[in-house]
Amino acid sequence: MAHEFRMVHRVEFADTDMAGLVHFASYFRYMEATEHAFFRSLGFSVMMWDRFKVGWPRVQASFEYHRALRFEDEFEVWIRIVAIEEGTIRYTCVLTRGETRIATGRFTIACASRRPNQPMRRASIPPEIRTRLAVAPARSTDDEETLK
Amino acid sequence: MAHEFRMVHRVEFADTDMAGLVHFASYFRYMEATEHAFFRSLGFSVMMWDRFKVGWPRVQASFEYHRALRFEDEFEVWIRIVAIEEGTIRYTCVLTRGETRIATGRFTIACASRRPNQPMRRASIPPEIRTRLAVAPARSTDDEETLK
Amino acid sequence: MAHEFRMVHRVEFADTDMAGLVHFASYFRYMEATEHAFFRSLGFSVMMWDRFKVGWPRVQASFEYHRALRFEDEFEVWIRIVAIEEGTIRYTCVLTRGETRIATGRFTIACASRRPNQPMRRASIPPEIRTRLAVAPARSTDDEETLK
Amino acid sequence: MAHEFRMVHRVEFADTDMAGLVHFASYFRYMEATEHAFFRSLGFSVMMWDRFKVGWPRVQASFEYHRALRFEDEFEVWIRIVAIEEGTIRYTCVLTRGETRIATGRFTIACASRRPNQPMRRASIPPEIRTRLAVAPARSTDDEETLK
Repeated sequence: MAHEFRMVHRVEFADTDMAGLVHFASYFRYMEATEHAFFRSLGFSVMMWDRFKVGWPRVQASFEYHRALRFEDEFEVWIRIVAIEEGTIRYTCVLTRGETRIATGRFTIACASRRPNQPMRRASIPPEIRTRLAVAPARSTDDEETLK
Repeated sequence: MAHEFRMVHRVEFADTDMAGLVHFASYFRYMEATEHAFFRSLGFSVMMWDRFKVGWPRVQASFEYHRALRFEDEFEVWIRIVAIEEGTIRYTCVLTRGETRIATGRFTIACASRRPNQPMRRASIPPEIRTRLAVAPARSTDDEETLK
Repeated sequence: MAHEFRMVHRVEFADTDMAGLVHFASYFRYMEATEHAFFRSLGFSVMMWDRFKVGWPRVQASFEYHRALRFEDEFEVWIRIVAIEEGTIRYTCVLTRGETRIATGRFTIACASRRPNQPMRRASIPPEIRTRLAVAPARSTDDEETLK
Repeated sequence: MAHEFRMVHRVEFADTDMAGLVHFASYFRYMEATEHAFFRSLGFSVMMWDRFKVGWPRVQASFEYHRALRFEDEFEVWIRIVAIEEGTIRYTCVLTRGETRIATGRFTIACASRRPNQPMRRASIPPEIRTRLAVAPARSTDDEETLK
């Protein structure tokens, strides 16, 4: 069972904008790429329509931006599961460059089934996946403070 | 003085992903494009380094996704100023396609000054801009409910 | 029958990079958005799997960059059909800002059919679409020179 | 002296589009990311305004698409220098997934200097960089054939 995942990324030129920094929307792609690598580390692809008949649309996503990230910076994205419910998983996400906290994110994904030509509907997390996931242990007050 | 802005967008192919829907990070670009059109409607460009020596980095951005958006959908982005402080502006953002609420966002931008080869620093909103902006009137409980 | 289409775009902030200009890959999205608007002007969506059982993957795309494009610039994208074959359409694409030629592109799209769980295969252009399209008249040597 | 570089990438979800494949514009970002890694392998950052007073805008970029690339595919991008002139470098670029040729690209970058508030101007390649670069040896006719 796993409750967290860490992944190192590097800022590409196309992620920047004319302010000379990483564009704020790029952070959401970093978060997503890390989550998908987490699924792969468990032996699953997040595209599991064929195997499990479900997909994982995002229902909520946010970032607070503390420091700027620049071209060619190497940084770590650390995601932790903070809640698992019937059909949703909630994560926190922390970006750090060395000792510097860059950004703090939160996102919630929902398990959804889809039949041909129908909209997606909420579904329960398939047991084979649910048994591989755990909620991260509560962190100390100080840690939570920095996570705010 | 202005406190809100509405803009119609159309989903482009490059905004979609293999789930057949608009990728969740694309919503942040729609929100940003609308805010920049709002600034233009007031006679300013959001790139005001030369004119006012300040820029507007994002310090917080979030979306809740209620319904899916698809290729070629026309939709409206409605942003409202919900708070103005010394150096920050907070907005809400509602995406609708016809009568259907698609997503609800919130974002906060900060006024920042930058000297050559120095990091950005928080700054006060230039008076010439501040006088053009107002906080949107409080909305009814029902409205707030839908805005959640 | 139509052989060309013009569309005005505006540069969004997210299209730029840290060099302060529009990122070179953004031009391909402008070209594509214009082509899709061209299809809509003929009464079709480029996503015609349901209606015609075909899609339009790109088989070739190129740009020559003559001048820089900047944030908030308004520019025109002009596409012209220069060849129609059994299963492909070839376009030229010219971006201009006022009188200034910004970039010149070429792209070829192929008509492709796809059955469930099979790769796409080349297909003939559906007659209902083919009858709406024409090859643009040859342009003068001078024009071709500037198009080069 | 170096004349080529190879880099393995993985397709991220945000690179795909609703056709279920990698969007054609994403290939240009893969090509660019590989070139920038090539520069890093030589001890330079492509952002060399401070160190060498020059930048590297693209003047031409193209791809031919032979096969589709899909989510989570691992693929190699191989770039080779095919010409070096006073102020430009021309590359070929080949994407392969295992033994399968996915796409063939070509791109030309120009060396450009820029003074504050002036447009970029063509410049010579700084000697310190020029001495590190070589033109790749001619390849056999068969190879060229596959490169087309």
